[in-house]
Amino acid sequence: MNFGINLSFAVKRWPEPLVWARLVRETLGLSQVQFTYDLLDPWSPEPMRRSMAAEVRQAARDFGITIESAFSGLANYCYDGLLHPDPAGRRISVEWWKRAFDLAAELGAEASGGPVGAMSTAAAADPQRREQLYRSLLDSIEELTQAAAAAGLKRFLVECTPLAREVPYTVEQATKFMSDLKGRCQVPVQLLVDVGHALYQPLYGPNARMVDWLRGTGQHIGAFHLQNTDFQSDSHWGWPDSRGLFDVAAFAKEVRSAGLAHVPAYLEIIYPFELADETVLASITSSVLHCRQEYCGATPERARPA
Amino acid sequence: MNFGINLSFAVKRWPEPLVWARLVRETLGLSQVQFTYDLLDPWSPEPMRRSMAAEVRQAARDFGITIESAFSGLANYCYDGLLHPDPAGRRISVEWWKRAFDLAAELGAEASGGPVGAMSTAAAADPQRREQLYRSLLDSIEELTQAAAAAGLKRFLVECTPLAREVPYTVEQATKFMSDLKGRCQVPVQLLVDVGHALYQPLYGPNARMVDWLRGTGQHIGAFHLQNTDFQSDSHWGWPDSRGLFDVAAFAKEVRSAGLAHVPAYLEIIYPFELADETVLASITSSVLHCRQEYCGATPERARPA
Repeated sequence: MNFGINLSFAVKRWPEPLVWARLVRETLGLSQVQFTYDLLDPWSPEPMRRSMAAEVRQAARDFGITIESAFSGLANYCYDGLLHPDPAGRRISVEWWKRAFDLAAELGAEASGGPVGAMSTAAAADPQRREQLYRSLLDSIEELTQAAAAAGLKRFLVECTPLAREVPYTVEQATKFMSDLKGRCQVPVQLLVDVGHALYQPLYGPNARMVDWLRGTGQHIGAFHLQNTDFQSDSHWGWPDSRGLFDVAAFAKEVRSAGLAHVPAYLEIIYPFELADETVLASITSSVLHCRQEYCGATPERARPA
Repeated sequence: MNFGINLSFAVKRWPEPLVWARLVRETLGLSQVQFTYDLLDPWSPEPMRRSMAAEVRQAARDFGITIESAFSGLANYCYDGLLHPDPAGRRISVEWWKRAFDLAAELGAEASGGPVGAMSTAAAADPQRREQLYRSLLDSIEELTQAAAAAGLKRFLVECTPLAREVPYTVEQATKFMSDLKGRCQVPVQLLVDVGHALYQPLYGPNARMVDWLRGTGQHIGAFHLQNTDFQSDSHWGWPDSRGLFDVAAFAKEVRSAGLAHVPAYLEIIYPFELADETVLASITSSVLHCRQEYCGATPERARPA
């Protein structure tokens, strides 16, 4: 099993590359991360961005950590992105992604991605506008895969989200999206499936199951996000959490059965900004231990770094 | 009483200026807003940003809405800002604020602001680095008030937050902060006090009271944020909410007693991205009604727009 961590847990608390790298390697015992743009905004002007990116890359090297991908966090998810109702808003998002790809390459990552956009309530309610925005999204993705290739990236990861105004949000839509992009992309587009998104019951109903995503989109899945959830919110909780119901071991079994054990799975916990730092550190440590045991089958002894 | 709404409720759902302006004026019956940079990122390149800002300004004019200030939302709060441990990170934040001030002026706002920064866990634990970063923050604020004045703004609003790594976070620190800035600023720096921040019990204890903030920092308060909260999280819930405990009418009485009835109070509700749009619309409508009744003393009849 291929298990790593999204650096969301480090945001604002442990932003120094040498600090989060040491935490990842020595406290959490991990060697693969997904960088989050919440630690360094792709909009950041030069020469500051380049110098900060170089420090990230060096710290990862120093601690023997692979930055496999660089991913959108909370900040970029606040905007409508490539599905913004205003063409100017969509153009802004295209520019953001081009900068994100350049930054990903500077970090030494092979892939970049995130949720790609949300329609406004008004646009989503109008079938013709929905269709126009969807076509525009395909064009933007095509353009962006050229930029990703030019930056030297190997994959563009599109995250599936639990909102009917976003694309893609169902197995069916994700399958159509991948089919509609066929033959248009300079680097492969793959899906990132977050277990808490996929099992959000207010949208998908009480019978939502991960196997539907694994069977329906498995060949296109480029990464997973792991989180603890009550299936009633996009929770991004850790373990233990009295509210959480997600069974990591059962998911691991499904992933193995689907032949997707090689796909990277990143723990992505999002803590309230105001939560005490020591609480966050304890939670991320116990969460990684839980996932290593349940997802990778590692005993606590083997989970320790060499 | 001076009551308006922060546009946080509109983020991603109702981003079109004519759509949120109609909602604010006709559905919510309000005529004063605080714009959120979560609707338009100050980093956005030209000419897109300018054209989108012009549409915001025109929509506000069309609907008779005053944009009193433009404020940081969730996106900018993801970063350590003016207290970032890396000088490059702090410089990026200074540039962001300069762009934010230009955008605020383009929107026709008189003021701009937000939380200004967070120290990393490592920096906050080191008294000498804390002091250095605090001095650096004062310098940055001084520089930024020059930029604010150049942009034509009249006030810079600094938000108090419920984190000991951020500045300012207590009545004492806020008072010292204002005192340390005295005589250095080209436009007045004022405090924005959020009731849910000020009453966060895990940090301030069970005896935290709004009157302490009103008495201790009253002369420096430039705006309030209103939210419903259980005092155990920075909740940003609306009304009704079975979890919420904040008494708006009692707060209104305290504000009047403190002679601060003229200070703008903005309802700032932050809904989960995945929450159903109709649920959000119902909640923001009932929340505004609640605050108009409890904060302004308006009956439901008088709360309707003319």
